[in-house]
Amino acid sequence: MSEATARQGLLLKADPIAATFRDEVKDSLAKCTTRPRLVGILATSSSPSKYYAEFTRKQCEDLGVEFTLKLTGAAISPDLGEGEGVEEAIIEANEDESIHGIMVYFPIFGVVQDHYLQQIVSPLKDVEGLHFKFHYNLYHNIRFIEPMSLLASTNTLPVPTDIADREELPAGTVKSIIPCTPLAVVKCLEFTGVYNKILPYGDRAYGKTITVINRSEVVGRPLAALLANDGARVISVDINSIQEYTKRPRVPTDTTESLTVQRYHPRHVVHPSHLSLQEALALSDVVISAVPSQSYKVKTEWLKDGCVCINVSGEKNFEKDVRDKASIYIPAVGKVTIFMLIRNL
Amino acid sequence: MSEATARQGLLLKADPIAATFRDEVKDSLAKCTTRPRLVGILATSSSPSKYYAEFTRKQCEDLGVEFTLKLTGAAISPDLGEGEGVEEAIIEANEDESIHGIMVYFPIFGVVQDHYLQQIVSPLKDVEGLHFKFHYNLYHNIRFIEPMSLLASTNTLPVPTDIADREELPAGTVKSIIPCTPLAVVKCLEFTGVYNKILPYGDRAYGKTITVINRSEVVGRPLAALLANDGARVISVDINSIQEYTKRPRVPTDTTESLTVQRYHPRHVVHPSHLSLQEALALSDVVISAVPSQSYKVKTEWLKDGCVCINVSGEKNFEKDVRDKASIYIPAVGKVTIFMLIRNL
Repeated sequence: MSEATARQGLLLKADPIAATFRDEVKDSLAKCTTRPRLVGILATSSSPSKYYAEFTRKQCEDLGVEFTLKLTGAAISPDLGEGEGVEEAIIEANEDESIHGIMVYFPIFGVVQDHYLQQIVSPLKDVEGLHFKFHYNLYHNIRFIEPMSLLASTNTLPVPTDIADREELPAGTVKSIIPCTPLAVVKCLEFTGVYNKILPYGDRAYGKTITVINRSEVVGRPLAALLANDGARVISVDINSIQEYTKRPRVPTDTTESLTVQRYHPRHVVHPSHLSLQEALALSDVVISAVPSQSYKVKTEWLKDGCVCINVSGEKNFEKDVRDKASIYIPAVGKVTIFMLIRNL
Repeated sequence: MSEATARQGLLLKADPIAATFRDEVKDSLAKCTTRPRLVGILATSSSPSKYYAEFTRKQCEDLGVEFTLKLTGAAISPDLGEGEGVEEAIIEANEDESIHGIMVYFPIFGVVQDHYLQQIVSPLKDVEGLHFKFHYNLYHNIRFIEPMSLLASTNTLPVPTDIADREELPAGTVKSIIPCTPLAVVKCLEFTGVYNKILPYGDRAYGKTITVINRSEVVGRPLAALLANDGARVISVDINSIQEYTKRPRVPTDTTESLTVQRYHPRHVVHPSHLSLQEALALSDVVISAVPSQSYKVKTEWLKDGCVCINVSGEKNFEKDVRDKASIYIPAVGKVTIFMLIRNL
């Protein structure tokens, strides 16, 4: 290597990260008395959805999980409508006691109607964690729940604050399911050492500044909340606004407005940020982009030298030379996501 | 925990870090055909030196290393001078083939004469790594040496650059000894996850900004060089000046002086910094202070929220409330240092 060569950062594909969960999932499955059964519901003619359904099947078979793909609507024939019969298929799967988990291949109708469908899936079978109760728990940093509370019409009762910082489960509770993609990102951050294992559970991202680009309900917003609940200072960037999510907002200590005292909150608070995207990136140890657009690119020039970059979008949100500045670049997290899903099952 | 309570960072004493080396050192010792013998040379009436000598003895005995304390000068009797006979004791130990390592308890005469004594200790027996050849290797990022080259009158021949990035030893070479205290600090940074194990060897601190306060020849300067050689951006602060040590200096790309291109150097370069101490601390993921003064304190107010603070001084260089801002605070590294010493032996 000559003195003038810029050394490139590490290209980290999701496979070795996913591999760390293979054994864990296999062990859990070995302990099951009945073989778990996952049903996938494919209601459209979309090629990416078909591809993802086949990928789910392959992973399930590899791990010994029974996978059934239920086709409906345009997935059966072009003569049928996109999404036709999908609600009925979900209700049927909810009621079928031999089915333990349900996965619906979105998008189907569009943001609003798809969101409705996500609430139709029984929260007890929702392997993707898309039910609003899981989002509610995430936004309120409620980590442990009584399973039957999911069926109650009211929201989950919050578990006392200090319990959110415990790694072990309180008696009679289970871990609340975390939406798959945000959880997969956290697993990537654990793997890459951004989450610090010697810090207490529930605060392992303390000291890290993380920019999350896009604030969708499926990925961006829950991810920002999750990272902030784990102690990070999160800068959430959307087309319209930039916000900060943090458990330790800086508050003025006196009339001179010196910003020196942090107050620790049991869950994150959100406030508008005065930073521009460029300023946010210059501060960020981690940059996560989830913009579903081919033309959107994070400028390598704006990145902090040595940061970790994670592309969550199906499109490439980082420029080709991202590794000139990033110490680690993860181009896709899908393979980790699918393990989170089987884990939730 | 109430909402308003500021949660404190982790207080990390050196014991668990030192413990990780106990087994490694014990294993190595078990493989030795002859029992290694360390001689300590105490030539002053200084209480801290006496205490440290006894501490060395205890650790050696605990690990099965033979330790002999050689007293000379004022260490024998107040009638004799401070440091009397120390040079003769060192020469004798150099020539005694039954002695494998020599440790001299400094300070004795003062900076300049002590530095002379450090060159008298045979580099083959210098467990502390104080010989200038080890510093030379460190400043030039020469990690592997041919042992006999230490006895040559010229400097060690540099090993080709890319070998500095290899973890395995090239044939016929040994690792160059790294001064004990800087090495102990690196071990603390590995333990606390600041060094990232998934990055390539020789670049594991890439992306981290580290302020080192004090630029002494024994600790501050070699430490800054070591961290920069491992990829960190190091801000070295002394009473008179602030410098940056880095392998990736930003160079202007065009006449508009936009600072976007990094050039990767095989070893660090040093340049003056435009930052003040306050600005440096606001950027720093890690703050290491080694100021031998009771009155010197790093202002907690200036620290970046969630940083790691390490006190290397015998005095407390951080304020009592340091953990209001630091995610991890290591108050002393002496116990790790002594293991590095036995490891070097």
